[in-house]
Amino acid sequence: MACLLLSAACSETRTGMIHTPTPPRLVGQSDMLRFAAEPIPTVRIAFIGLGMRGPGAVKRMTHIEGVEIGALCDLLQENTAKCNRILESRGLPAAREFYGDPEIWQEVVALPDVDLVYIATDWKNHARMGVQAMKCGKHVAIEVPAAMTMDEIWELINISEQTRKHCIQLENCIYDFFELTCLNMAQQGVFGELLHGEGAYIHNLEDFWDEYWNDWRMDYNRLHRGDVYPTHGLGPVCLAMNIHRGDKMNYLVSFDTKAVNKPAHIREKTGEEVSDFRNGDHTMTMIRTEQGRSILIEHDVSSPRPYSRMFQLSGTRGFANKYPVSGLALAGEVVDPETAKDHENLNAHSFLPQEVFNAMMERYKHPIARDIEEKARQVGGHSGMDFIMDYRLIYCLRNGLPLDMDVYDLAEWCCLIPLSEISLDNGSAPVEIPDFTRGGWDRYNRVEFAL
Amino acid sequence: MACLLLSAACSETRTGMIHTPTPPRLVGQSDMLRFAAEPIPTVRIAFIGLGMRGPGAVKRMTHIEGVEIGALCDLLQENTAKCNRILESRGLPAAREFYGDPEIWQEVVALPDVDLVYIATDWKNHARMGVQAMKCGKHVAIEVPAAMTMDEIWELINISEQTRKHCIQLENCIYDFFELTCLNMAQQGVFGELLHGEGAYIHNLEDFWDEYWNDWRMDYNRLHRGDVYPTHGLGPVCLAMNIHRGDKMNYLVSFDTKAVNKPAHIREKTGEEVSDFRNGDHTMTMIRTEQGRSILIEHDVSSPRPYSRMFQLSGTRGFANKYPVSGLALAGEVVDPETAKDHENLNAHSFLPQEVFNAMMERYKHPIARDIEEKARQVGGHSGMDFIMDYRLIYCLRNGLPLDMDVYDLAEWCCLIPLSEISLDNGSAPVEIPDFTRGGWDRYNRVEFAL
Repeated sequence: MACLLLSAACSETRTGMIHTPTPPRLVGQSDMLRFAAEPIPTVRIAFIGLGMRGPGAVKRMTHIEGVEIGALCDLLQENTAKCNRILESRGLPAAREFYGDPEIWQEVVALPDVDLVYIATDWKNHARMGVQAMKCGKHVAIEVPAAMTMDEIWELINISEQTRKHCIQLENCIYDFFELTCLNMAQQGVFGELLHGEGAYIHNLEDFWDEYWNDWRMDYNRLHRGDVYPTHGLGPVCLAMNIHRGDKMNYLVSFDTKAVNKPAHIREKTGEEVSDFRNGDHTMTMIRTEQGRSILIEHDVSSPRPYSRMFQLSGTRGFANKYPVSGLALAGEVVDPETAKDHENLNAHSFLPQEVFNAMMERYKHPIARDIEEKARQVGGHSGMDFIMDYRLIYCLRNGLPLDMDVYDLAEWCCLIPLSEISLDNGSAPVEIPDFTRGGWDRYNRVEFAL
Repeated sequence: MACLLLSAACSETRTGMIHTPTPPRLVGQSDMLRFAAEPIPTVRIAFIGLGMRGPGAVKRMTHIEGVEIGALCDLLQENTAKCNRILESRGLPAAREFYGDPEIWQEVVALPDVDLVYIATDWKNHARMGVQAMKCGKHVAIEVPAAMTMDEIWELINISEQTRKHCIQLENCIYDFFELTCLNMAQQGVFGELLHGEGAYIHNLEDFWDEYWNDWRMDYNRLHRGDVYPTHGLGPVCLAMNIHRGDKMNYLVSFDTKAVNKPAHIREKTGEEVSDFRNGDHTMTMIRTEQGRSILIEHDVSSPRPYSRMFQLSGTRGFANKYPVSGLALAGEVVDPETAKDHENLNAHSFLPQEVFNAMMERYKHPIARDIEEKARQVGGHSGMDFIMDYRLIYCLRNGLPLDMDVYDLAEWCCLIPLSEISLDNGSAPVEIPDFTRGGWDRYNRVEFAL
């Protein structure tokens, strides 16, 4: 029978796998795994991009010890002024304002009295600003996604390895309380061996499209198929699976739907009939890892759906699910053993009762969250996860510790953007995911947050 | 930049697509789309396979008007006798019992006074029994999955088209109340244009493995990668998307994890160290349709997870989700318009409030469910959906109407079994899904349940 013959004959082949080139590492350049810089007692920060995400970051940093905000940069003076008013309201000295000239950020990254450049501009400027800042001797923290192309990803890696400067992506969702607690559970073995994980960015942006400077976000979706915003979904799953700390992502395949609601938004707003809109309303990407795990990542920013990051971890002994409701299930946890044998009864294996769930969430609260949880909730920003993110960044820089995320996490979480587009433009062919560590992915055996 | 060049150059190619052969239709043989047989006032049924699912079917049929149960067949006399006791308890005459000889079912399908053969044996005998029954002039209803290979699928189609006998798969989940109501909503336009759907069979079978005759289910999983049980997840989504009534599935790709828990079960039970176990603990399959829709189907029968069929329909104007909680969301339904503009607020687009959800479920209850809902709940069997399935089968046969599902639904929902295995054995390459109607997929524009 044709199918079975083929299946038997090809069991170890890789039909149609699209190779993804890995540039060689220059002589004298070495990886940044577990890299730690000299301690910086007071971290002097320059902010670039103060439109949507920037002001919140400025405000959060004013609540963190050992921080000096020295420079504020945006295209619009009203945005830099607004952030200086935040500093004033917190009783802090005004920072220098840079605005107007689209290239004035080049002066900011060159300032001698800056240790960290915090970038929250539009997606397309993230990587080049980060590269230039590192070349000027600064550590960089870049909003998500930090890079949109394989060239940008490899340049951020190479420049970080050459300059020995931190290059971190500001992926806040890994610090959400549920995800952090699940990471701790995974490392404590609660789920047994993790085999499958899911994540997504499902967020109906219909009310936000007009708020992006010059429609940059809609324009990017118009020009690109694929998952253009994968890091919130992928980040927490990759950390729980110890990606490039003992496992690695080997290849991906993407599927999408046709584009309907985003071009319809343009038509309603401008009257233009868009026939060349590239990004589908819904995109799915599947990933296989070296250790035989699988990952599913979805992207949908235009369907009328409740917000979901679809966070899910599935292991041989336990299961965690966050959307639309948070729940945990553990092997052997049968609510009613009598009914477990009844194959008509579909609820024998259920989520843990609420009180047990609550006890588990408290018991396995991540160490880095436990101490600052209350302060984080007070300061706010996505229920505190943004504050924990900034707090951890400053804490590690001040104490000369490795950061929670490195430039390889940035690369792995962003590479879905160009690679999912290649898969889609080639009929959902599998596309190789390179080893961004260039050989170091199995040197360590687990993710570690320095304390 | 290599990736973008490739992406631009290959935008319409189908790299690595594995072709799936379609056998020619014999002269004089025509399709079974919307086929209706002569009315059968009293439907005389022979049952084959009375182990797990069979007895429940016998019991349900005793509650349906215009049915005569004439023959009961199983390997074990205790099973045929048990079902005759069901008939006796319902005050019905005893049926002839066939048991013992593994091939005695051949006598059953040849009985002259039988109109319908109802098959609930192990998976590997479904198709050959169905084929032989049609050759003997009987309509056939076959438990899921009705066919496991492309050869079996095409033979069921060809014999049905040649003999002009109904060949229906007993997919009960399309009759579950939520799925039926969502089908009605989809046909009424509540979701706008459907773009994406999801389904699954996630059911921890650890307590059931030893109940399958001669371990046939575990053995099948041991020998086959891929989604070996896709119909419960795929059926309701395909009907809502009008597959082969205006749309068609074009290709699929599958990913799986390594196999851990099922071989561990064998080791614990027999001490055997299984190194050749084929079926992964978790399998995902993505499908693209001719009309630009996407479908995701998952399979997991060995992880400690709550039962889920992951039923989900996502359209341009509405969204439905069933697991772990049922919910509906509609375009423009913002619970608090004031918060919709706040990009830090992630809950602006929420599920409809419970009372609105309840009203929608009542308003859009499917016509075929409305009348028999109460009786179905009384008779039972997966909350009544099994009864509705059998009731509809008999109702359509008695009235000479097309059945709710046809042999092409059977083919489309079962083809994931062999085709997902081919994709996995070829490095997750895309595999073509044939047009099982051989040209008739766009003759009609919607699924219709005859009334």
